[in-house]
Amino acid sequence: MMPLSNLATVVSEITAAMQARPDRGDVATYIPELARIDPARFGIAVIDAQGNVVTGGDAEVPFSIQSISKVFTLTLALGKHGDRMWRRVGREPSGSPFNSIVQLEREQGIPRNPFINAGAIAVTDLILSGHQPREALGEILRFMRFIADDETIQIDEAVAASEQRTGFRNYALANYMKSFGVIDNPVDLSLGVYFHQCAIAMSCRQLAMAGRFLVHRGLNPTTGLHVVSPERALRINALMLTCGHYDGSGEFAYRVGLPGKSGVGGGILAIAPGEASIAVWSPGLDPNGNSHLGRIALEALAKRMNWSIFDG
Amino acid sequence: MMPLSNLATVVSEITAAMQARPDRGDVATYIPELARIDPARFGIAVIDAQGNVVTGGDAEVPFSIQSISKVFTLTLALGKHGDRMWRRVGREPSGSPFNSIVQLEREQGIPRNPFINAGAIAVTDLILSGHQPREALGEILRFMRFIADDETIQIDEAVAASEQRTGFRNYALANYMKSFGVIDNPVDLSLGVYFHQCAIAMSCRQLAMAGRFLVHRGLNPTTGLHVVSPERALRINALMLTCGHYDGSGEFAYRVGLPGKSGVGGGILAIAPGEASIAVWSPGLDPNGNSHLGRIALEALAKRMNWSIFDG
Amino acid sequence: MMPLSNLATVVSEITAAMQARPDRGDVATYIPELARIDPARFGIAVIDAQGNVVTGGDAEVPFSIQSISKVFTLTLALGKHGDRMWRRVGREPSGSPFNSIVQLEREQGIPRNPFINAGAIAVTDLILSGHQPREALGEILRFMRFIADDETIQIDEAVAASEQRTGFRNYALANYMKSFGVIDNPVDLSLGVYFHQCAIAMSCRQLAMAGRFLVHRGLNPTTGLHVVSPERALRINALMLTCGHYDGSGEFAYRVGLPGKSGVGGGILAIAPGEASIAVWSPGLDPNGNSHLGRIALEALAKRMNWSIFDG
Amino acid sequence: MMPLSNLATVVSEITAAMQARPDRGDVATYIPELARIDPARFGIAVIDAQGNVVTGGDAEVPFSIQSISKVFTLTLALGKHGDRMWRRVGREPSGSPFNSIVQLEREQGIPRNPFINAGAIAVTDLILSGHQPREALGEILRFMRFIADDETIQIDEAVAASEQRTGFRNYALANYMKSFGVIDNPVDLSLGVYFHQCAIAMSCRQLAMAGRFLVHRGLNPTTGLHVVSPERALRINALMLTCGHYDGSGEFAYRVGLPGKSGVGGGILAIAPGEASIAVWSPGLDPNGNSHLGRIALEALAKRMNWSIFDG
Repeated sequence: MMPLSNLATVVSEITAAMQARPDRGDVATYIPELARIDPARFGIAVIDAQGNVVTGGDAEVPFSIQSISKVFTLTLALGKHGDRMWRRVGREPSGSPFNSIVQLEREQGIPRNPFINAGAIAVTDLILSGHQPREALGEILRFMRFIADDETIQIDEAVAASEQRTGFRNYALANYMKSFGVIDNPVDLSLGVYFHQCAIAMSCRQLAMAGRFLVHRGLNPTTGLHVVSPERALRINALMLTCGHYDGSGEFAYRVGLPGKSGVGGGILAIAPGEASIAVWSPGLDPNGNSHLGRIALEALAKRMNWSIFDG
Repeated sequence: MMPLSNLATVVSEITAAMQARPDRGDVATYIPELARIDPARFGIAVIDAQGNVVTGGDAEVPFSIQSISKVFTLTLALGKHGDRMWRRVGREPSGSPFNSIVQLEREQGIPRNPFINAGAIAVTDLILSGHQPREALGEILRFMRFIADDETIQIDEAVAASEQRTGFRNYALANYMKSFGVIDNPVDLSLGVYFHQCAIAMSCRQLAMAGRFLVHRGLNPTTGLHVVSPERALRINALMLTCGHYDGSGEFAYRVGLPGKSGVGGGILAIAPGEASIAVWSPGLDPNGNSHLGRIALEALAKRMNWSIFDG
Repeated sequence: MMPLSNLATVVSEITAAMQARPDRGDVATYIPELARIDPARFGIAVIDAQGNVVTGGDAEVPFSIQSISKVFTLTLALGKHGDRMWRRVGREPSGSPFNSIVQLEREQGIPRNPFINAGAIAVTDLILSGHQPREALGEILRFMRFIADDETIQIDEAVAASEQRTGFRNYALANYMKSFGVIDNPVDLSLGVYFHQCAIAMSCRQLAMAGRFLVHRGLNPTTGLHVVSPERALRINALMLTCGHYDGSGEFAYRVGLPGKSGVGGGILAIAPGEASIAVWSPGLDPNGNSHLGRIALEALAKRMNWSIFDG
Repeated sequence: MMPLSNLATVVSEITAAMQARPDRGDVATYIPELARIDPARFGIAVIDAQGNVVTGGDAEVPFSIQSISKVFTLTLALGKHGDRMWRRVGREPSGSPFNSIVQLEREQGIPRNPFINAGAIAVTDLILSGHQPREALGEILRFMRFIADDETIQIDEAVAASEQRTGFRNYALANYMKSFGVIDNPVDLSLGVYFHQCAIAMSCRQLAMAGRFLVHRGLNPTTGLHVVSPERALRINALMLTCGHYDGSGEFAYRVGLPGKSGVGGGILAIAPGEASIAVWSPGLDPNGNSHLGRIALEALAKRMNWSIFDG
């Protein structure tokens, strides 16, 4: 590990470079509440192995984590249901956009992986089973606060309501899976929880805090307790690498070389195993639905810190 | 890094365990010459960062490397054509079997990545351009001998001829790409080179030798010369991780956690960056066309040596 | 036209032959209410150009017309919206099963034709626009009673409720189209009307009565009024021929040679232009979801009466 | 039947109207030899039930019949192999463009119908079996001359050679089917015959003559001999209706209402059962690859003569 001063310099320089760039991608418009976000925002937070927190730009501004929540609900569901969970979700890259329904028809309603929408809905449905939506959502929120060590994390109800009114594609995916028996609960209930988990608002700092257990073989360094077993932490990282950026997962691995998970709110959580938990935020997206500057910032960071997992 | 004696013990125990297992998968039958291989074969060779070679089982028996050759022709083509090569091949997992033609129709003849058959044929076509097939093949063979530091490596002409007679699916893929202008040379010539590169016969030891430059940021430790730049070596590793096992790439990343490339001959080359170049061979395949015991052996090896790239 | 006595003989012989056959296909099980129907039922009703009604077997027993209703809602929607209707539904065979969602993804949410489920839901949504579901349903039912000249036709509420509880695939299709803006009304309302129209119960006699306007260039022979223009009647026949039997439409045209529309309740309405309106009912289905004996009976009838439209 | 004078008037008026239209579609460019044809050409020939021949425009100019040949090779193959032929080709509309390969992957190499390219290649391969390509081609040509009653019909060798050099998509289809065992002969030989059959040059008059057996229940009115059985003639008509215009088959049935088969040379053969054999030619194509003015002319003709098979 390089000294903190170097990391601070690198983060500072990357922040400046990103803030100066004119190319910002396009802010997601299909969720009306997200369409209003200022595309000029850029934030970054890095927490190194010693627990030092280095931030840049809008690192303290909460944003909608959206699909990044899928990493945490997967972790929760694996904790509750173990490997039986894999009966209803696969572990392969989908080769299709995040909201594609074609793959579901070919594969009898079993989503390709837990990071496409269909897969994440199936995971949330599993967390819901045996509970009221309010309880399931409470459990998810408590888990986020616990791993981030931050009781202030909240759900943005306006975003959740916005998706609940307009998320027809997700209603289609959930009903389609239900027709194959992959969804146990009433579709409206599972999607209610799903839309709320996606509407959790977190800052880069909070998100980087929440990702630490994936850096340290499942260990939460604050509490010294294991969030998941070492093997499971490694495997969640593997899924983030192969499936974390939808149809741009190969490109992210090729350019950045870190496990990561993006959300259409413009956030990306990336893990440098043993080194650092990283969160970036820039609301403009590339054509695959991943943060345009977020990816570029992570590529620069991984390169300058020699953090690529494909390096020796 | 653990001491050699530990690696030797681990390799020896894994070899014994694999040789004792009754489950071996099914030997590929669609290439008649390969169908005759004894499914009881198992070999492994590991070359660590100090250049120590540890082997087990049939590590000196040559086998048909088949699709593992795609790693080396990709390396060659990138060296000759640089990033222009990516105009005709993508970098994303395909979400489809190795010989699927569906993706080509949807994406205007551009293969998803260089490790599915269509992509590798397009790469070989690029190496061929401006040359006679004999010259292109000579260049590929010389490159293999150079990086493996072994002049005895040969092509198995019977296997090449067998594929040339029966490889109709590959003829379909190549003609299909040619209809979109993605293949420059006459299809028969490009496929002639392709079938011969797949028919290169190598032992686990030779293959592990050939993989060393991917362990050491592009450097061939024997010659001290760079085969490719550090950045390119990392990126080839990234492609192996996301796309190296066809429709089982996610599963391999999840279970083994190393960049790797399989061939239907039953071989797998795996890279533990900074640690080791690894080749395994067991002819029986799983339903995705990857060596059944080869994958299991690599999972055990990566776990016992703590080599997963998703670990800290 | 052959004399009535001949038609009566033919219908009688076909009825006897069908009743004696052991092969009956499988009753649809995905709608629980339909799964209870006795597979031994067989009915047929033929109304010739002079208005003679010839029946056989269970011709007076009401059954669930299911997708046969699509012919009538298409007729209604064309009457109300004219050719503008074709902006949201195509006119080509789908090459896919009746409930496939793949085609919708490829073609931006526009269903291939009005006789697959997605297309029929889009048509019903158009009929609903500007009305309450109750009004729209009333209009459909009045139209059915009018063209069949029979005020006793009813909706089977148990069947409608059964589909409303379990029709997840149709909810998926409707939400998917709504995500593309192809559905105007709230999905639950459009599907409410759709499930009720499918649950209309009619006997073979009533159904054959309702089909007469398609035999006579749009003219209802009872009232002497045009239900639709001659050109439109021909075109509805054309759509029934190319798309009326899902993925078995080609086979039906090849074997029977008449425009027809099947329903999973086991009914088929077939039109011999200028000659006869025909309804058959046998609840057992073939793998494409069309009445097994119904198709065989129609093939025999068309052959013996020389009614194939491909004949001179 | 209307008197000849009326048919002559109708044909003459349609010819004048077509010749005056500025919209002509685009001449096929993927076969270089066809790209040179003058798009201003328009021809029509109608042979009525009494054998009267009515022509308009360029009715005597030979053009490349291309896919229209598929009707005749299907007829030949059914004559030689009977219904066993259907083991390797289906009878359903494909829902895909004429040269799509996607459907083949989903359905194990069995083409959807004999009128898409893959299906026609499979049919030609069957005709070739047991023969030299020259013999098979001779048989096809003799059959064309026999049913057209015209010994001057020839193959345009320049067109055949042009396709043989550039028909990569067809090479892909044939190799793909061969990988599933659907093609018996060496791909180059089957395609050699196929490209030559497509390169047969015929005028509208010759083509209309060749189609007469489909008007008269399989009977060649010149010789009084049956070319095929009545049932088979009807069924070939049914296939032309459901599958004769690729992805525009539904539209052709909807607008024209006659069985027909188009070719990318701009010709269409249409059958009015019991009434007339019709050939039109206009080289400009619509987006589905069917003659633009040819379809419009046939729509006008069918309407004015009341020939739609969906009419009483």
